[in-house]
Amino acid sequence: MPEFLNNLLQRLRGERGHNMELLCRELLSQRGEASQTVLAQHILEQYNRMSGDQQLKFFQMLAERFGADQQAIQTAIENYTRGPTPANEAALAAAAEAPRQELVRRINTGPAGTETLVRMRRDLQRLLPGHSDLAVVDYDLKHLFRSWFNRGFLRLERINWQTPAITLEKLIEYESVHEINGWPDLHRRLEADRRCFAFFHPSLPGEPVIFIEVALTRGLARAIDPLLDINAPVLAADEADTAIFYSINNCLEGLRGIPFGSFLIKQVVDELRAELPRLRVYSTLSPLPGFARAVNASDNSEGFTRERLARLLKEFTTELSAEAGVADPVEAFFELLKEPLAHLEVLTPALRRLAIAYVTHMKRNGRPVDPVANFHFSNGARLEAIDLFANTRPYGIRESFGVMVNYRYVPDDLADNHERFVQTGDIQVSGGLLTERRITGELWHGSRSKKPVREKSAVK
Amino acid sequence: MPEFLNNLLQRLRGERGHNMELLCRELLSQRGEASQTVLAQHILEQYNRMSGDQQLKFFQMLAERFGADQQAIQTAIENYTRGPTPANEAALAAAAEAPRQELVRRINTGPAGTETLVRMRRDLQRLLPGHSDLAVVDYDLKHLFRSWFNRGFLRLERINWQTPAITLEKLIEYESVHEINGWPDLHRRLEADRRCFAFFHPSLPGEPVIFIEVALTRGLARAIDPLLDINAPVLAADEADTAIFYSINNCLEGLRGIPFGSFLIKQVVDELRAELPRLRVYSTLSPLPGFARAVNASDNSEGFTRERLARLLKEFTTELSAEAGVADPVEAFFELLKEPLAHLEVLTPALRRLAIAYVTHMKRNGRPVDPVANFHFSNGARLEAIDLFANTRPYGIRESFGVMVNYRYVPDDLADNHERFVQTGDIQVSGGLLTERRITGELWHGSRSKKPVREKSAVK
Amino acid sequence: MPEFLNNLLQRLRGERGHNMELLCRELLSQRGEASQTVLAQHILEQYNRMSGDQQLKFFQMLAERFGADQQAIQTAIENYTRGPTPANEAALAAAAEAPRQELVRRINTGPAGTETLVRMRRDLQRLLPGHSDLAVVDYDLKHLFRSWFNRGFLRLERINWQTPAITLEKLIEYESVHEINGWPDLHRRLEADRRCFAFFHPSLPGEPVIFIEVALTRGLARAIDPLLDINAPVLAADEADTAIFYSINNCLEGLRGIPFGSFLIKQVVDELRAELPRLRVYSTLSPLPGFARAVNASDNSEGFTRERLARLLKEFTTELSAEAGVADPVEAFFELLKEPLAHLEVLTPALRRLAIAYVTHMKRNGRPVDPVANFHFSNGARLEAIDLFANTRPYGIRESFGVMVNYRYVPDDLADNHERFVQTGDIQVSGGLLTERRITGELWHGSRSKKPVREKSAVK
Amino acid sequence: MPEFLNNLLQRLRGERGHNMELLCRELLSQRGEASQTVLAQHILEQYNRMSGDQQLKFFQMLAERFGADQQAIQTAIENYTRGPTPANEAALAAAAEAPRQELVRRINTGPAGTETLVRMRRDLQRLLPGHSDLAVVDYDLKHLFRSWFNRGFLRLERINWQTPAITLEKLIEYESVHEINGWPDLHRRLEADRRCFAFFHPSLPGEPVIFIEVALTRGLARAIDPLLDINAPVLAADEADTAIFYSINNCLEGLRGIPFGSFLIKQVVDELRAELPRLRVYSTLSPLPGFARAVNASDNSEGFTRERLARLLKEFTTELSAEAGVADPVEAFFELLKEPLAHLEVLTPALRRLAIAYVTHMKRNGRPVDPVANFHFSNGARLEAIDLFANTRPYGIRESFGVMVNYRYVPDDLADNHERFVQTGDIQVSGGLLTERRITGELWHGSRSKKPVREKSAVK
Repeated sequence: MPEFLNNLLQRLRGERGHNMELLCRELLSQRGEASQTVLAQHILEQYNRMSGDQQLKFFQMLAERFGADQQAIQTAIENYTRGPTPANEAALAAAAEAPRQELVRRINTGPAGTETLVRMRRDLQRLLPGHSDLAVVDYDLKHLFRSWFNRGFLRLERINWQTPAITLEKLIEYESVHEINGWPDLHRRLEADRRCFAFFHPSLPGEPVIFIEVALTRGLARAIDPLLDINAPVLAADEADTAIFYSINNCLEGLRGIPFGSFLIKQVVDELRAELPRLRVYSTLSPLPGFARAVNASDNSEGFTRERLARLLKEFTTELSAEAGVADPVEAFFELLKEPLAHLEVLTPALRRLAIAYVTHMKRNGRPVDPVANFHFSNGARLEAIDLFANTRPYGIRESFGVMVNYRYVPDDLADNHERFVQTGDIQVSGGLLTERRITGELWHGSRSKKPVREKSAVK
Repeated sequence: MPEFLNNLLQRLRGERGHNMELLCRELLSQRGEASQTVLAQHILEQYNRMSGDQQLKFFQMLAERFGADQQAIQTAIENYTRGPTPANEAALAAAAEAPRQELVRRINTGPAGTETLVRMRRDLQRLLPGHSDLAVVDYDLKHLFRSWFNRGFLRLERINWQTPAITLEKLIEYESVHEINGWPDLHRRLEADRRCFAFFHPSLPGEPVIFIEVALTRGLARAIDPLLDINAPVLAADEADTAIFYSINNCLEGLRGIPFGSFLIKQVVDELRAELPRLRVYSTLSPLPGFARAVNASDNSEGFTRERLARLLKEFTTELSAEAGVADPVEAFFELLKEPLAHLEVLTPALRRLAIAYVTHMKRNGRPVDPVANFHFSNGARLEAIDLFANTRPYGIRESFGVMVNYRYVPDDLADNHERFVQTGDIQVSGGLLTERRITGELWHGSRSKKPVREKSAVK
Repeated sequence: MPEFLNNLLQRLRGERGHNMELLCRELLSQRGEASQTVLAQHILEQYNRMSGDQQLKFFQMLAERFGADQQAIQTAIENYTRGPTPANEAALAAAAEAPRQELVRRINTGPAGTETLVRMRRDLQRLLPGHSDLAVVDYDLKHLFRSWFNRGFLRLERINWQTPAITLEKLIEYESVHEINGWPDLHRRLEADRRCFAFFHPSLPGEPVIFIEVALTRGLARAIDPLLDINAPVLAADEADTAIFYSINNCLEGLRGIPFGSFLIKQVVDELRAELPRLRVYSTLSPLPGFARAVNASDNSEGFTRERLARLLKEFTTELSAEAGVADPVEAFFELLKEPLAHLEVLTPALRRLAIAYVTHMKRNGRPVDPVANFHFSNGARLEAIDLFANTRPYGIRESFGVMVNYRYVPDDLADNHERFVQTGDIQVSGGLLTERRITGELWHGSRSKKPVREKSAVK
Repeated sequence: MPEFLNNLLQRLRGERGHNMELLCRELLSQRGEASQTVLAQHILEQYNRMSGDQQLKFFQMLAERFGADQQAIQTAIENYTRGPTPANEAALAAAAEAPRQELVRRINTGPAGTETLVRMRRDLQRLLPGHSDLAVVDYDLKHLFRSWFNRGFLRLERINWQTPAITLEKLIEYESVHEINGWPDLHRRLEADRRCFAFFHPSLPGEPVIFIEVALTRGLARAIDPLLDINAPVLAADEADTAIFYSINNCLEGLRGIPFGSFLIKQVVDELRAELPRLRVYSTLSPLPGFARAVNASDNSEGFTRERLARLLKEFTTELSAEAGVADPVEAFFELLKEPLAHLEVLTPALRRLAIAYVTHMKRNGRPVDPVANFHFSNGARLEAIDLFANTRPYGIRESFGVMVNYRYVPDDLADNHERFVQTGDIQVSGGLLTERRITGELWHGSRSKKPVREKSAVK
């Protein structure tokens, strides 16, 4: 740090002490311009030392004291009301913008400003549930972050064994879909038949914003265990015909609600096409995180009501009852679910039917309730396959009775699929799933559905 | 570019043709999300092919059609009026923000998006004078650019002979204070006794946003010619005791009004202190761009009225009259100014007096009318010296009769000086100029000034 | 530099002064090991300050005093004579190796060691002609440089407008085939339809060892002027079908005799093939540097004897005589050559014939006397075309009456062509030149040649 | 790889098959020049596929068939004998140089040439013990490597957590002094109070040639366990006053005999001085690898004869006998050594005395028999302290009964110390060890030594 700034900072520490409101006002004042960086640094340092309580008070202060000037808003409203011209509209917007935004912009000029502000929003979000008055602060931070973390400012970079350890370490920390168990596990995920890509922002060097893990395989991978097996033989990359996206992770809580995932997948598909022209299929192997919860919470009228379960499982009554020693197929089914791995064979067709129903028919506001399904359909992917007992690790059984899903990205169909999905909620499925979807749909809707099944599979 | 995006683009070119409004609406729509990058690219390409007329129409369309939803504003106003809570205030700000801003954010995701948007604002600014209706578009662009080009995102880099030619070439292009005459001239400005620094933005690789040129000298440089002499001997950097900032240039018209200069000078002072501990003085050698115009336009009541000129020049009547063969000193002065270089000796004290008056007393709204003076005083610099016939090149004579100025940056005084300047308009001068300023001030104000001369020189 | 080394160096400067022999002995001694780097630095500094006379003495000292130990050689000879085993042979080699080599290896550990040693050999070579006693020093330097500058240690890098100015400046300095007239000329040579590649050595950062300039054209370029025209329109690279190598320059005199050129051309051919798959033809446009000298020195029995000239020109007697007003065709020819550009049309067929004779038949020790021709044939290229008045700049007329040559690199034929050339001296020519070569050959050899014309054109 | 080279290679594979002698001859022949890189590649590939037996045959072939031309040597000998001029001497050296050297230079032009050649010498060295006929091949490889791996071509780089994992992984692999137990152990060794530096060669990217590990401490570290403790608190680097070099590792067996260590330590001392001006002491904490073996092999007349042991241990008879229940002190001592950790207190003074004797008096050819001691004394370091039970890990007890040693590097004394050591074998010790060394010396030599104890402690 420049020496003279250092001097100023020393003085500041004495003078204005820890009064954050005073410091923030100072930074926003015209006088603050001359020493913006050093004031920003001081505020950042103060913030970094705060306890949770102090953070709460700090955010409340920001919410209450750094809003817009009510008098100025009043005047702008009057002008606008008299003449709703573009200029008066802009003036109204300016008057209503909380000075908090300019304050945050100035704080950002301090050392590690962006990093700290992102962490600040993370802290803020943890407080939000109980403190709706802080929502306005979150609104301002998110508003700025959407500008700063605009896709145009992100760089895609490949992560491999050449990457600095300090960045690799973060993958281990941030991977939350399929935990990375130390460095040898990580190393396997960066071998010749794996790819890993991340978006980086120039102001957060070495810090991935989001990353995706890809396995290169022969044929569609329909179970996660072989992909995570640290001792699995390494396939030569140019022998692969399929790229499996098996994990995608947002790294920074403080950027929640700023969308990157869709961009990332599409750009990675393209990187892979350029590098490995033999690849034919791009598909995820995804969890179905809400499935078990949905099945268990069977009283939800949008969801697996008792009636629906009865209809969906009826076909498998004989096998379920015999295995469980319980007459009612639904009760038998729940009995068997207590130890699903012990009843693999019997459960398979039943779980398959429910999973198809869950992914393709269980919706809220016209969208799939499963967040992962909703994400990929919204990107224009199609439902390619349902994989039974594909994740038999404890969390896999717990979340979805081991079921996983392949969502396939057919590059040329993405835009159309996306468009149809956001307009009509229509979901694309592979040819092999058409009939099952229709049958499941009829059972779900309780009769020959009145709603015509308009959806068609993507042809490819 | 990804192939599938390419396909989409091909289709777009056919379908939506050149209808920019349609394209922009598409990009803003929910459907546009899936193909944001490719739509953005298409819009950027269209823009790059526009004639001046088409640009005007494009900006007018943005001004008229991409403003906020009036009904939504009305509702937000009503809510706010009923309850001026922070939340309603934020809602009002959101409602009043023109969708143009989101549009620009999405355009930025296209290739070379930032670069093109900055050029777009340059084009817009050239149209603004005759088209006040476009001001709202400029407001939105500037608002976003202030976030994007936040000091926290700029990197200071040293420019030297190791720098890629493509960047060096831009210095030649952008230098407008003291023109660079080709590569040998540039090379001399990057020798061991020169320094050059620039701010770069991660989204504009190789493109300086602002740069500054520094000469390392022994003693204060008080004339520009020796500094620009391509054949001047090179001083060993560690023999220098003074750093002279002799040129600072904003490179991108499209970033007008986004302030960088103050940050740059302060950071460069610090870089130099770290590299060359023997430096004692940091000072500019600056032009006085408005001086000649001010002297000539002597009817301005804030400026050099005839009466003021008479008072300021009275002391030099004998010499001026004798040299010009004209009795009246003011008339004699203007006569000699027709060929200033022919009357160097006689003009020197007269010009010195007027220059001091111009810099320290000629103000508008309490600020120096000279923009360069205003910039440096606002940064906290002090007036160190007035240099007569320091720039005898045609543009130097034309702009300021050859007068230049040293504004000195004393690191430890900057914050205080700045504070005093923005609060009271007080200007700091070096000890050697105190008396002259006082005398000039009395002459300027026409009598023992009633306004007490409160300003004190910086002591250092 | 480490402080303690600095201390040592200070001491050295006092103690051992400028006695280079003492310093070199010290560096070679066991005691020198501890302070190798600092002793090396001292020697390098001393060398850099030497006048030409001092350099001569320094090299003579190296030649006389740092040879091998005669007694040790004697012993090694005796052992070897008694038993010429591999071990005794190695011992003999070791004994006969001058300690100069180890000395140079140790000097190389000093700062900028390699760079200075290369310059040292340049200085040495300039002294060699009059000082054959220094050849042993040159032998040792060259021996080491061949190891150090082994192809395995060189990196090919593309040079373009992104390259640091400090490197670009060196192209201007080192280009000796077709002089670069300042930066705009250089810039044109780095545009989208030009390529430039250089080999770099890790110990000479930013310093090209050899570079090649390439023009991308439509069709074979048969004259140099359009290629060097600074205002020529820029062709889109992917519209080119031909790559013309129009200049190749060794940069460092001190590396004379260390071969790079052949490697460079072949690797560049491959880079271009990878980047621009539409290229079909790789060819030089080369000078014929010895042609004018050979024609003028017509008494050389290997060359253009009067008799040969008479035979070669006989066919054109009428036209030559008429134009020159001189009966004898040879005399007429020489008369016209005084101003070749004034007699373009008449001279064209005559010069063409002599040029073909010169390139394909004028040999010394079975190899073409023209060094450029010899270089490209040795690389496996073939003679593709003779270009009349292709370089009408003064140096082009002076060296070769404006004649230039295309040597074509057909990748798949290079190894065979090379092999044939080094074994038999056979030269490959394009189909279009076969007949002319045969006719010229008969005229050159004075009769139906007894030597069967075995050469065949490359088939492609 | 260039396509045409690829073609050639395909052909080669068929034609010349696996006949390595033929391939090598081809590469050396004039014809080989045109396709040097591709032939080199082929040879490298063949080598990489060889079994141990095939390697042996390959090396024998190189030894027997690629020696110098005996006739040429004979002629050179005759010329030299007639006139032992520098030129004839150079000619003799050239004639006696085995063509193997040029062959290796050409092999080096292939992809990963240097890397493979270094591995080749590693393989060769493993064969040498039983195959003295291969020494000539080793001689040639080492001769070239000494040129290629000249200090002037090595770059010092700091290794830290920013370093690519692929390089960090190699530290784990190559660390043989104090094994690195996985990534967390490695991470601790790269924390803020640790430093790690390595030499890299431009032709072996990412591959350290030698590396050193440093701990920053307060006061001299006299035991290894705290330094290796993965959970030890991290000291702020600027609070340290001492740098402890606790591990130095040559990475590549194939470079055995090419010295780097001395250069590395000295340069690292200087890096540390520049970075951390508060450091006062630079010292190793080194193993004493031959100590236990020397003590146990007590029949060696240069070493710990029974008689010497008796004299050295006499002073401690009471304590040793009591503890062991054995009268004879030497026998008691050996008894206790069976479980040294159980008798720490009693053994301490005895082991200390023997260790001092071992380091300072046990010599062969005038040099310390302990290789580590010899290395540091040869670098000019001094014996600073003997550390009892400083390494209680199994290998520490096994090698040296837990004893470790501090060798201190006093920058300004290094050159003098080195000079004295290589001239006279004199060893420098710290002031605190002077008396002990004298006493031990008298006991070692069996009487008031006739050899005057000339050594003096380093004064500092």
